[in-house]
Amino acid sequence: MSLIVQKYGGSSVADASKILSVAGRIGATKDSGKDVVAVVSAMGDTTDELIELAQTISPQPDPRELDLLLSTGELVSCTLLTMALRTLGYQAISLSGVQAGIRTDTTHGKARIHRVETERVRQELELGRLIVVAGFQGATEDLDVTTLGRGGSDTTAVALAAALGAERCEIYTDVEGIYTADPRIVPEARKMADIGYQEMLELASYGAKMHPRSIELGAAFQIPIYVASSFKETQGTLIHQKADERPMEDRIKVTGIAYDTNVAKITVRSVPDRPGIAAALFEPLAQTGTSVDTIVQNTSVDRTTDISFTVSRTDLPMALAQMETVVQEIGAGDLVSDDTLASVSVVGSGMQNTPGYASRMFRILADGAINIDMITTSEIRISCVVKEEQVAEAVRLLHRGFQLDEEP
Amino acid sequence: MSLIVQKYGGSSVADASKILSVAGRIGATKDSGKDVVAVVSAMGDTTDELIELAQTISPQPDPRELDLLLSTGELVSCTLLTMALRTLGYQAISLSGVQAGIRTDTTHGKARIHRVETERVRQELELGRLIVVAGFQGATEDLDVTTLGRGGSDTTAVALAAALGAERCEIYTDVEGIYTADPRIVPEARKMADIGYQEMLELASYGAKMHPRSIELGAAFQIPIYVASSFKETQGTLIHQKADERPMEDRIKVTGIAYDTNVAKITVRSVPDRPGIAAALFEPLAQTGTSVDTIVQNTSVDRTTDISFTVSRTDLPMALAQMETVVQEIGAGDLVSDDTLASVSVVGSGMQNTPGYASRMFRILADGAINIDMITTSEIRISCVVKEEQVAEAVRLLHRGFQLDEEP
Repeated sequence: MSLIVQKYGGSSVADASKILSVAGRIGATKDSGKDVVAVVSAMGDTTDELIELAQTISPQPDPRELDLLLSTGELVSCTLLTMALRTLGYQAISLSGVQAGIRTDTTHGKARIHRVETERVRQELELGRLIVVAGFQGATEDLDVTTLGRGGSDTTAVALAAALGAERCEIYTDVEGIYTADPRIVPEARKMADIGYQEMLELASYGAKMHPRSIELGAAFQIPIYVASSFKETQGTLIHQKADERPMEDRIKVTGIAYDTNVAKITVRSVPDRPGIAAALFEPLAQTGTSVDTIVQNTSVDRTTDISFTVSRTDLPMALAQMETVVQEIGAGDLVSDDTLASVSVVGSGMQNTPGYASRMFRILADGAINIDMITTSEIRISCVVKEEQVAEAVRLLHRGFQLDEEP
Repeated sequence: MSLIVQKYGGSSVADASKILSVAGRIGATKDSGKDVVAVVSAMGDTTDELIELAQTISPQPDPRELDLLLSTGELVSCTLLTMALRTLGYQAISLSGVQAGIRTDTTHGKARIHRVETERVRQELELGRLIVVAGFQGATEDLDVTTLGRGGSDTTAVALAAALGAERCEIYTDVEGIYTADPRIVPEARKMADIGYQEMLELASYGAKMHPRSIELGAAFQIPIYVASSFKETQGTLIHQKADERPMEDRIKVTGIAYDTNVAKITVRSVPDRPGIAAALFEPLAQTGTSVDTIVQNTSVDRTTDISFTVSRTDLPMALAQMETVVQEIGAGDLVSDDTLASVSVVGSGMQNTPGYASRMFRILADGAINIDMITTSEIRISCVVKEEQVAEAVRLLHRGFQLDEEP
């Protein structure tokens, strides 16, 4: 029997009636002749509430303890969903991350999956059962519970789909699919029927609803990922290996506009300009799993430089604490941070090797009186860091400027 | 270094400030030169809230799913307590039941501990850490999470104390110790400085604050159990192997009065009076772990009998459902249940081989116009099932009637 992995986000299981409705969907998939492994996030805002609870005890909770605490959110939703499936008459069983064989490294709060031990899941599938797995969590070799960080449940779902050889991975969420821009900001944004892994990866990396990790994993194992609404029956978006069928010179160059408001900038002033300095600055961040995005370095005349880089706002306090130590060690000047920024990105696989996209983007932003703070580019993406208060306007201007509101 | 196991109940960790206060107590024990393993229940009414949540999905939730759901309550409190200990500057680590090596059978909801694998706990103790264990939970050989049923966290604590060879097990709770009767009902009840395992076991079995399982385990492994308030510094009660130092013929005969309002009675009418009937009736209950207390059988003239027995009220719905099947199978008459009952017990090791205690108890109740529904006795206990509305008065009358308000 072919296997589907389905993932349901926190808003899809926010209360008992939603959980029963999700159970109905999973049951319908089973009735259509498929095996199903469902992966579920914590109900509604549970994770944030647990973090707040921890902070009433400790302003910076120990990451290992926080992980075990946060893992309870998904245990609650996965057992409730299993009970709902049983209420509807299906054979079902819940599995925690540990039980589902999600084995990770020891980076608490942002663990990476090393492997999936599928034995238990396969046993349960052979018994004809529907399986509900607690997303977002795994365990180290010592059975210490870890969490996978942002987008963790999506990653759990795609990892299980890859390990189990699933037909595809379906992500049910509170959006109806992948759009050319956030439809809450750009009403004329269009939903795409499908998109390639690479373009989706760039959109996701720069703020689209999905987390890039799961897309990366999907691309690596060639798992088609279908993103759709958990509330409506409308067609969603398939992320897959896309054959480019458009006329060679005529394809659209820009696929979509992404933005991200979880952006903070740190500037280290008067850094001595000598070899090994970048390593000294960024190694401590890498060791704690803090991912650094844009890095800008301005060389100056007096043998010192200013180095700026962006991190996610959630990582800012820890990154600043680490930087203070480093700044003392390397004898740099002071440390400045700004958490009122956002990034806006133009993504499209047709952009590579085609000049003029960057300048067109800068022109559109300039015409809108939007100041650009930092710039980064990849082969198929150009991103600008701007003031957060201007980012929605930037997305609208770029969507219109690149004619994304017109049917291709 | 000698080891103390401390257990803190749900009311002791009901909010952040109480958790910090418990952390202070654990830290003080560590500072006094002891190793500490703390076992913690779920915060306040968490367990009941989780059961209610499950019942919004399914009126009779699957026991396996319910166990994984309920286990989250203790994970939350044990991680928060660990964070609190770290905030106070102690090295501390939380362990789930699985991680603490609590291995149980597969009777979900009422699992029994098979063994404790102490390797992980010993490793952490050798690192000088305080250890906080999630009470009430364990895991089967398949790593399926189980819960231990009522009094489960006490059982976890005593089991760990036994497995680790602890000096003693301390149970911190919302009472100040063991009294001759419930002080909320009998204001003149006296707190005992110590009590023997057997007497405590009878008191606990018939309604005193503690669950008999942990006392049984303490007796079997000779672990002294100290029961005291988690809020006050007053002296508590030590449960241990008590040498009877009183003059042989002069010792007090009655130690305390216990009562239990979690009592329901089932009567099976017109049961055919033939061999094997009792087994047919009670085997299904035993298989689901429902413990049956008092059993009364009235023989009659027409080769049928009425059999009555008591179960805890929480077990009543499931026991009734099972009995309905059995009644059909054996061709018995109808099924009647009553959940407005309670039991009251007189306990004392001096009672054995001393006639007259039972009749004195019945006389006291009769003089108080309290009707006795059922009677059971053990070597050191006499229990009567009475109307729930009369049980408080029965406790008061018996406490006075057996002169428990007078200093021994």
